Amino acid sequence: MSDLSRLSLNQATIKYAGMEQAVSACLRAEIPGIGLWREPVAEYGLRKTGALLRQAGLTPTSMCRGGFFTSPDSDQRIKDLADNRAAVDECAELGVPELVLVSGGLPDGSRDVDGARSMVLDSLAELAPYAGERGVRLAIEPLHPMFCSDRCVVATLGQALDLASRFPAEQVGVVVDTYHIWWDPTVYQAIERAEGRISAFQVCDWITPLPAGVLLGRGMMGDGCIELRRMREAVDKAGYTGPIEVEIFNQEIWDADAMEIAELTAARYVEHVL
Amino acid sequence: MSDLSRLSLNQATIKYAGMEQAVSACLRAEIPGIGLWREPVAEYGLRKTGALLRQAGLTPTSMCRGGFFTSPDSDQRIKDLADNRAAVDECAELGVPELVLVSGGLPDGSRDVDGARSMVLDSLAELAPYAGERGVRLAIEPLHPMFCSDRCVVATLGQALDLASRFPAEQVGVVVDTYHIWWDPTVYQAIERAEGRISAFQVCDWITPLPAGVLLGRGMMGDGCIELRRMREAVDKAGYTGPIEVEIFNQEIWDADAMEIAELTAARYVEHVL
Repeated sequence: MSDLSRLSLNQATIKYAGMEQAVSACLRAEIPGIGLWREPVAEYGLRKTGALLRQAGLTPTSMCRGGFFTSPDSDQRIKDLADNRAAVDECAELGVPELVLVSGGLPDGSRDVDGARSMVLDSLAELAPYAGERGVRLAIEPLHPMFCSDRCVVATLGQALDLASRFPAEQVGVVVDTYHIWWDPTVYQAIERAEGRISAFQVCDWITPLPAGVLLGRGMMGDGCIELRRMREAVDKAGYTGPIEVEIFNQEIWDADAMEIAELTAARYVEHVL
Repeated sequence: MSDLSRLSLNQATIKYAGMEQAVSACLRAEIPGIGLWREPVAEYGLRKTGALLRQAGLTPTSMCRGGFFTSPDSDQRIKDLADNRAAVDECAELGVPELVLVSGGLPDGSRDVDGARSMVLDSLAELAPYAGERGVRLAIEPLHPMFCSDRCVVATLGQALDLASRFPAEQVGVVVDTYHIWWDPTVYQAIERAEGRISAFQVCDWITPLPAGVLLGRGMMGDGCIELRRMREAVDKAGYTGPIEVEIFNQEIWDADAMEIAELTAARYVEHVL
């Protein structure tokens, strides 16, 4: 038997499965962890989700997502920060240790990328103590630079670490997602530097051609060109012993049967990551 | 009258124009430089192109492109290097000072990004003296990381500079293209470091959503989110006094009238770059 003990299926990989179906798929594929998203959790009910996971013996490994810190409108910023506090509360309620942050892109019509990056830092400063007090860590996720303008002005692991290092390690960490950072010529130095700051390790593969809009371009492990095992080994070497989450946005995978995708995920994890 | 003295229109911006039409468009828009591509030059004839440009008083500012150094097949590598030498010869014949290199992506089925990067360095070492002896500089162009797997394993300006720094500055330089590097949180440090190594400065804008395949996603200056003037000022501050080339791959722009695009290019250059 292969060791799936660190494996976690992010529920975005089987986006169209309901909460109960997602849990069943994990159990059937012997995947012990699940990465949650706020929307399906809210739809199923927060307490009900907690009960379902406990009953199934599934560990919630992370929650997507907080962030979107770059609104220039002060009323909107207040709302966004409140929403992030609510996300922290939900994590605390479910015992999810890490809240994944997608920091936000440039405001509409803005060219001020430095300004947007400052807003991210300001928001982290607002939220970090709140999260830390509740036993939840804010996990800054650098997104691939192709998302810099519209989703996330944090574009490299090094930049995420620079931000995180302004705060205690138990309050702010970083997400190492192979898809977003594999291309970076300095990525292994950054992973080494991330010791003690790795909130989550997410894996999927880089495939081309990219689809229009590029959001749904991720590939199943083994279908692309990322040295997944090498990155896993680097993350391990940096002292990370936590879950390894599979998060894939891909229309074909979404359209497939959730049980089959969970089993394929486990098989590909063993073949390409473990 | 606005100062268009540094402006150059890369002929890929008006891809469907023939050589004579491209030259006419530059003249009509009072654009004094033209960035050439090997294929349309070959089609029109190398000597004939030289004569046409001299007669028109247009300066050829760069040639696209050499590169594609990552073939794992040794016969193919020999052919590729020969083709790069031919590209250098064409530059020398036309008096083009800079040969733009797109280094190549991962070989089919490969996950060895370090290996591909080594092949780029090896090919540069083969070609740099040959180019230098002919008065042509190899201009390493870092491409946006979304092209790392299939077009160019050189993904940041810093990485391009690390490669270039292994060679004399008159043999190997770098291309600063706003589209490819604007997202980089270290881009202004890299531009500062590029002093003496800037072979070409290319401008266009970043717009979303990206089209399928992402190659034709570039925008006209002013249509997107890049701080073009700030980048131009940084490049100037790094001692670069050369041409500013506009290179836009965009189906709508290609489908428009070449004369109108040349005039729009000049107007937008004044408004957003100068």
